[in-house]
Amino acid sequence: MTSPVLRPDDVIRLEGDAVALLDQTLLPGERRDRRCRDVAALIVAIRELAIRGAPSLGVAGAMGVALAALLAPDDEAGFRAAVAADAASLAQARPTAVNLAWGVAEALEELAGPWRGADAARVALARRARALQEDEVERGRRMGAHLAALLPDDARVLTQCNAGALACGGYGSALGVARTLHEDGRGVHVWVPETRPLLQGARLTAWECAEDGIPHTLVTDNAAATIFAAGEVDAVIVGADRIAVNGDVANKIGTYALAVLADHHGVPFYVVAPSSTIDPATPDGAAIPIEERDRDEVASFGTHVTAPAGTAVRNPAFDVTPAALIGGIATEDGVIRPPYALAGERPRAGAGARPVA
Amino acid sequence: MTSPVLRPDDVIRLEGDAVALLDQTLLPGERRDRRCRDVAALIVAIRELAIRGAPSLGVAGAMGVALAALLAPDDEAGFRAAVAADAASLAQARPTAVNLAWGVAEALEELAGPWRGADAARVALARRARALQEDEVERGRRMGAHLAALLPDDARVLTQCNAGALACGGYGSALGVARTLHEDGRGVHVWVPETRPLLQGARLTAWECAEDGIPHTLVTDNAAATIFAAGEVDAVIVGADRIAVNGDVANKIGTYALAVLADHHGVPFYVVAPSSTIDPATPDGAAIPIEERDRDEVASFGTHVTAPAGTAVRNPAFDVTPAALIGGIATEDGVIRPPYALAGERPRAGAGARPVA
Repeated sequence: MTSPVLRPDDVIRLEGDAVALLDQTLLPGERRDRRCRDVAALIVAIRELAIRGAPSLGVAGAMGVALAALLAPDDEAGFRAAVAADAASLAQARPTAVNLAWGVAEALEELAGPWRGADAARVALARRARALQEDEVERGRRMGAHLAALLPDDARVLTQCNAGALACGGYGSALGVARTLHEDGRGVHVWVPETRPLLQGARLTAWECAEDGIPHTLVTDNAAATIFAAGEVDAVIVGADRIAVNGDVANKIGTYALAVLADHHGVPFYVVAPSSTIDPATPDGAAIPIEERDRDEVASFGTHVTAPAGTAVRNPAFDVTPAALIGGIATEDGVIRPPYALAGERPRAGAGARPVA
Repeated sequence: MTSPVLRPDDVIRLEGDAVALLDQTLLPGERRDRRCRDVAALIVAIRELAIRGAPSLGVAGAMGVALAALLAPDDEAGFRAAVAADAASLAQARPTAVNLAWGVAEALEELAGPWRGADAARVALARRARALQEDEVERGRRMGAHLAALLPDDARVLTQCNAGALACGGYGSALGVARTLHEDGRGVHVWVPETRPLLQGARLTAWECAEDGIPHTLVTDNAAATIFAAGEVDAVIVGADRIAVNGDVANKIGTYALAVLADHHGVPFYVVAPSSTIDPATPDGAAIPIEERDRDEVASFGTHVTAPAGTAVRNPAFDVTPAALIGGIATEDGVIRPPYALAGERPRAGAGARPVA
């Protein structure tokens, strides 16, 4: 039930004394793994977006804690101190997606009980990280089925960024819906906005669709409105980096514009995200920290300079879509519709990897 | 009253037996002229967007006819046939902007009277082309003043693409408004969406602002919605490539999305364009042909491939904003507000370079 060409292990895995991940910055030109041999290297990979997407960041967080444990000293105090320090750094590597810190916290739960030795802790942490990844894939399959049930056959869906196997540890949230429709033979066409500045739509979503044979068409972010106006969009389906308790959703920059366009054209707008994306500590969208990324992402492209040296740039990586513009949020437990009562959907504090309703 | 650093002659001029133009594909990295020694070369320059923007295309059309005349045989029949053939090709070099065909037609008016010899025709055509350019600059100044009168001091305006001196033969339409506010010491800040796929915002508008010292900030097209949501936009001001009689406006792709966003956020949306942009033969937006440009503009960047080889691309260069979303259209004659009665604003058929109300 995963992508025919991209297995969860292909996206990210524990391998020997490293976290190995498919370097998403090189796609679609090159399919090459990056091996992170300590947490500092994993943090660099996360900041450079070699691994990205909220659920994949959750998996990376848990695997990072397992990696920290492999490198920590054997004595309990030293082990706990080393793992705690790495975990704290890792949880803060990127600010917007709550899943990263959530994955770290999930893994650390393994250390809550009595001390049974460093190796026992290492084995437990590795197992927990793999279980969390398996859960993300299973959640993707369930989310896909829940939302696919709302869509017509031959649906023309428009997404943003990449909320596919690469983003979700192996299956996908928003793109998982398209994958489900395609696997079920119901027909689907995916409109893929390129998603500036880093082109995750063009580079990653189009690549996943092409590899899996899912019909799709790439457009600039600017052209999405024309597709709406032509009546060629049946639904907008996006992922989420953080969902506030009131139902406001932070997702890749450009998502909010699509929500306004969908509203203007009477097209349903859906969010697909595991319930681990809902942050009980975030009451509304205004409380979500929005990562501001480097000027050069906008002002240059590779070695090409695309803007004058003296030009200021604002480069927020995410935006917030108000709950009022969202027609439904699909989690692994079903589709929640407005008015949202998301507090009941939050992960059970201190519980296992599977959030409960 | 023109840009301190960019005079009309810098944008495009007749020079000897050539049309010389600032190659806009090389900005902001390099400021270099391209010399077109025949109409075929000018058509290539137009298709490659070395010269672009509706009013500049009108000037290029008139100068192209003058260039054709320089290269045509001296006998009346041969002269007329050669100029007519070149003019017909030139008028069709790009389909959406009506100004290109309009500039060609304006120039051809010089040949409507009795034959007074090839050289007399050549001189008259060159004079007409220069007069048309001077008129565009004067129109820019007048349009700028008309719309600036509607804006507050220290206005934060958001534009799209480049509707500045480069696009308008020397001053600007939408960006001319910002230029007017800046020259008048009233304060202005320009939000510059980069304008994918060809980045005319980042490369050209930011460059004009930087050269003239106009405060500005570059954002991705995706980030514009966030700027609206933050309440940091006082007005959207864009140019136009064609205006239908009912007030629908074709402009650079992405404009329609900005109009929907402006409407959603209660921000006024203005179009600034010389009345030559109004096409009396186009009843409404549905009748405007939209140029579909090459896949590679979206699927690659320089030598970088940014999308899989098998991925289909839709790449419309323009979109249509319905009149209902437009708060006013500023021409050289003033600001027209809805309900539009644009038929009265169209250029007088067969008249001189200055369209009349």
